[in-house]
Formats: sequence, structure tokens, C-alpha cells
Amino acid sequence: MLAAMYLGDRTMSVEERDPDELHPGEVSVSVAYVGICGTDLHIFHGDMDQRVSLPATIGHEMAGTIVAIGDGVEGWKVGEAVTVMPLAWDGTCPACRAGNQHICQNLDFIGIDTPGALQERWNVPASTLVRIPAGVSLRDAALVEPVAVAVHDVRRSELAAGDKAVVIGAGPIGVLIATVATAFGAQVVVSEIDPKRRAAAEEMGLHTIDPSAVDPAAWVNEWTGGAGADVVFEVSGAAAAVLGATALAKVRGTVVVVAIHSQPRPIDLQRVFWRELRILGARVYERCDFERAVEMIAEGSIPADRLITRIVPLAEVNEAFTDLETGQAMKLLVEVSR
Amino acid sequence: MLAAMYLGDRTMSVEERDPDELHPGEVSVSVAYVGICGTDLHIFHGDMDQRVSLPATIGHEMAGTIVAIGDGVEGWKVGEAVTVMPLAWDGTCPACRAGNQHICQNLDFIGIDTPGALQERWNVPASTLVRIPAGVSLRDAALVEPVAVAVHDVRRSELAAGDKAVVIGAGPIGVLIATVATAFGAQVVVSEIDPKRRAAAEEMGLHTIDPSAVDPAAWVNEWTGGAGADVVFEVSGAAAAVLGATALAKVRGTVVVVAIHSQPRPIDLQRVFWRELRILGARVYERCDFERAVEMIAEGSIPADRLITRIVPLAEVNEAFTDLETGQAMKLLVEVSR
Repeated sequence: MLAAMYLGDRTMSVEERDPDELHPGEVSVSVAYVGICGTDLHIFHGDMDQRVSLPATIGHEMAGTIVAIGDGVEGWKVGEAVTVMPLAWDGTCPACRAGNQHICQNLDFIGIDTPGALQERWNVPASTLVRIPAGVSLRDAALVEPVAVAVHDVRRSELAAGDKAVVIGAGPIGVLIATVATAFGAQVVVSEIDPKRRAAAEEMGLHTIDPSAVDPAAWVNEWTGGAGADVVFEVSGAAAAVLGATALAKVRGTVVVVAIHSQPRPIDLQRVFWRELRILGARVYERCDFERAVEMIAEGSIPADRLITRIVPLAEVNEAFTDLETGQAMKLLVEVSR
Repeated sequence: MLAAMYLGDRTMSVEERDPDELHPGEVSVSVAYVGICGTDLHIFHGDMDQRVSLPATIGHEMAGTIVAIGDGVEGWKVGEAVTVMPLAWDGTCPACRAGNQHICQNLDFIGIDTPGALQERWNVPASTLVRIPAGVSLRDAALVEPVAVAVHDVRRSELAAGDKAVVIGAGPIGVLIATVATAFGAQVVVSEIDPKRRAAAEEMGLHTIDPSAVDPAAWVNEWTGGAGADVVFEVSGAAAAVLGATALAKVRGTVVVVAIHSQPRPIDLQRVFWRELRILGARVYERCDFERAVEMIAEGSIPADRLITRIVPLAEVNEAFTDLETGQAMKLLVEVSR
């Protein structure tokens, strides 16, 4: 079978390899599509070389079809369309014992810490499988994982129907958060400095503002009748956005930190104190987020056609990464096997 | 009557003045004791000259006795012992309309924005009065306001009985938060770098650690069996404490920002994200916090004798401020009238 391997130093190679042995409790999936995300790009750039073992087969946004069932697996059959919730927890750490398995203190993120989906046959624990219903294409189903991230972020914020939310940053996750929040009944505005991303968000039916043209705090103040937003999602990763995010939130409002900030960021704690704000971290997803994401894709709430800007064959995976890093693509899929 | 006036430039003056006119809805209180807090010290230092109107009679931690009742006031009588919850909200702003009157967007903090308690007769809206039960001395009752701050901070954190909490900073509020959290059934450790403050906290029965001698993160990790603390209260105001606070909290744990940070502080958002932490601002109090504070003082849960390190007569109020700024006093009361 063919498998993509990250060799380090911004290099992916596609090689012929024997399929892995199928262990008890595992299922073998014929991978159809794999989405490339920001984390994959970090790996490609060498930022996570301490965490991944080279050569590394990465990739964790995917959809495919079951081709073999390991010993002891019940409830699944060959030919079923599936995606994978790529988390494996130890079940014994304090976080797991308190019910937070999804952020287990010893979490194995499948596709980063262990082999991922950029291979024709991917063996995963049956417990990670999520069923894709008839009527959802495998192409669209490759979006389930990032949609689950957005569902998790919105659920974590405790955004209520009728609330007003600001999403800072219109990359793939920002757009998905805005889409999910809208579907959940909120009024949403997306703040994005890049005109192309802003235009893409507008084409998906989202309302946007340009923070270089209007003062977001003044805009939000007027939009909310002087109250401030119920929830602010920081999805840009920019230091200035973090510093400004607290100015957008209402008294007892919520700021959700979605973007990854690799270094400490200045936060306006005077504002946090004055308005009794709440800042929440949100990471990955729980199984219910995956299931809700599947439902949202099935019911047509996610603009998959606009999100998937390009599909490249596995042989061109290296180009896929270099294409993605230019920031032009919204969501790029690799077609692994037909 | 005598009244203390802040004249600007680190100067307090005690002057003879006519009592204010008693308006309908107000009650006149003979002020017995006034506690001086960090905010008063900020005013004394000139840090809040833009907010206070000079000459300013400040002070908002107090206890006294009703001496006159204004028109239209019901439910109070001359001779009753009272303290004052020094907040006046407009009732019409978005925060008030959402039930957060205590942090009204146009809050009048009585004693900062309008005249305070450092005068022999203080007229306040009857709605601000809180009854002091028989058996509680007026001296101890002057602690109700700072205890209410601590009750509010602990309630805001959603600390549960049996939880483990870290309090960073053993000033008066830090010690009160630790005391209230202990009374609410938590296990508490106080991290304090100053040996005198540490010794004072230990004398009040609190367990302390010296963050210059032990690594707080390693200590808390061992104390909590590798989980991290349920709640961390940042009461020090130090930038390094803010940066380190996130390392002490468990997965989905809470960091409460109690101290005032006049400039943005770097926060480890990678940790906030990774552990799905919650950072909460907490400011002033609600009426139930005041009532709980009165109960705690009445039942002897607050070590008033150890907290009140000095009582000075009104005539020496200037010295009281200069004494407090050396950091030697825990809680200093001004005896306004006998």
C-alpha cells in the first residue's frame, strides 16, 4: 500500500509499504480523504519534531470505509463508511478519573503521537470509529473532525440561542465556529483582517468586519446596545487579538481561547476583573461533539463545497502542504485511495 | 462633626465640618470604625486622582450605629448596629438588566466615587444597610466588607467542599479568601514570599508555602496526586504569580483573578488551552456575600483579633495611611467616634 511519510525538514514522501498488522480490537479502514490542518502544517514545518517519531505518517481529519475487522470487535462490518475520533486516553490519570478523558493528561493523539491517516490502509481502535450515515459523501465526511472542534468550542462557551458572538479570525476553524454558532441560534460577526479570508467568509453567508477599518470594540458596543458580546472566540493566534478580545465581551461575558499561542500573551486583567469576565480554554472534542458534527454535515448546515477549496492526490501530498502554507486554501483534502 | 479629607499628594486632613443634609431614603450612621484597604491606599498615593473629587472623604469598610432616619425609610430604627454595602447601581444598564447590578456599568462605589465613611456622621441610602446582630462588636463588624469580598471570590470560583485550593498572596484579602475557603470545606494552601506575612497566616491556622524555597507547581502536583489544584486564587498582583498560576490548576481547573493588575499581564495560554482552564474575574460582592460575611463573623469563623493589627484614632488618620503602606499591618482600623 502507499503511505505518506513526514521525513523532517519540510519533506513528505509517498512510499510503498506493507500494511500494519491488524491487532485485536482494531479495524482496518481504507482511507478515502484526509484533510490537512494547521497542526499538520506545524509538524511539516518541524515545530513538533520533539513530539513526532520520524518517519511519521500523520493526518487525523479523514473519512473512509472499513475493509477488515480485528478479533473481538463487535458492532461494525466491512463496507461501512466511517470517520475516526483520533483520541486515545489512558483512563487512569486524574483528568480521566474526573470525566475529562478527551484531555487525558497522557493523551495519545492518533495521527500525531501515533500513525495517522495519510496511508491507504489505516488500523485504528474500533472505539475511535464514528459512523457516517448514507447520503453523506466521504469527501464531506472528511470535515467531521474540524467541525467537531467547532462544536466543542461553541458548547464549551455555553453560548445560548439568541446570544451575540464575535469570532476573531476567519481561517477554517473560525469559519466553522461561526457557522456552528449561527446554526445553534446565535447572531455572529467574524472579525478578519485579511480581505480574501473575509470575502470567503462572506460567501459562506457570514457577517464580517475588518478590524483595520473599524474599531471592533466600538462596533460591538453599538451592535449590542452598549452591553458587549456574550461570547468572543479568539481563533486568530495573534497577540493583538488576545489583548483586544476582552474589550469585546459583556459583563460576565466569555472569551474562548481556541487558537494555539506558543508563548505567553498579555491579557487585560483589569478588564477581566472589572467586568468579571471568564476566559476559557477549549481543546479537541468529546464524542458527542463528533456525533453532532456528523449530524450537521448530514443536514447540510456546513458549507462543505465552499470550505473544500482543493483536492490533491496522495502522490502530490508535498505540494499540498506547500500550497496550504500560502494561506490561500481554506480546507485542502488529500485523496488517498479511490 | 469631624471628617477626614484626602487633599491629594499623600495628605489626609481631619477637619470640623457641618454634617451633610439627610435626604429622603437615607439613614445617618454614627461611624464607629473604618478599615483602610489597598484601594484607599491607592487613592492616598494619588493613583486614582482622576476618579475621586478633591477634597475627598473616603473609606468604605465600616461599622456604626444609626442615629437618624430620613423620610420614607422603613424597617430601620435609631440605635441599630449596621454596616454598609457601598454600591449604588443605576438599575438600567445592560449589566443591571442582566442581573449583575453589583458590577453595574455605571456603578457608584460609595467611598470612592461619592463620600465615604471617614466622618463622624455618614449619610447613606437605606438600601445599602446590612444589620449587625447582637454579640458582634462594631470593631469586628468593620471587617464585614473585606470578608464579603472573600466570600464573593470563593463563591465565584465555584469551589466545592473537599476541593483543594491555592491562594497566591497572604495580604488581608488572601488570608480572608483562604479562611473562607477553609470554612466552606476546602483544603487550602497559601503561597507567600514574605516571611512576616507567611508567619501571620500560619498563626491564623493556615498552611503556607514559600515560593522562593519550593517550586509551587511541583508542590501542588504532589499534594494533589498529580492532578493540580481545583482552584487557584491570584491575590498577589505580581506578574510572575499570574504567569505561574496556570501551572497550578488541574485539567478544567479555575484561576480567579482577585488582585488588581493595572497593566496587561502575560498569561500562559498554551496551558489554558491544553488543560481547558477557566480564568475568572471577580469584583466586589453581592448582597448575599455581605450577609454570609456577617454570619461568618458572628459564628467566629474569621480570626478578627489576629487580622486587626492596629486601631488608630481619627486624629491620626494620616499616620494610619503611612503605617499601612509599609506593609507591616494586616488590617488597620480608624476609630472615628466612640
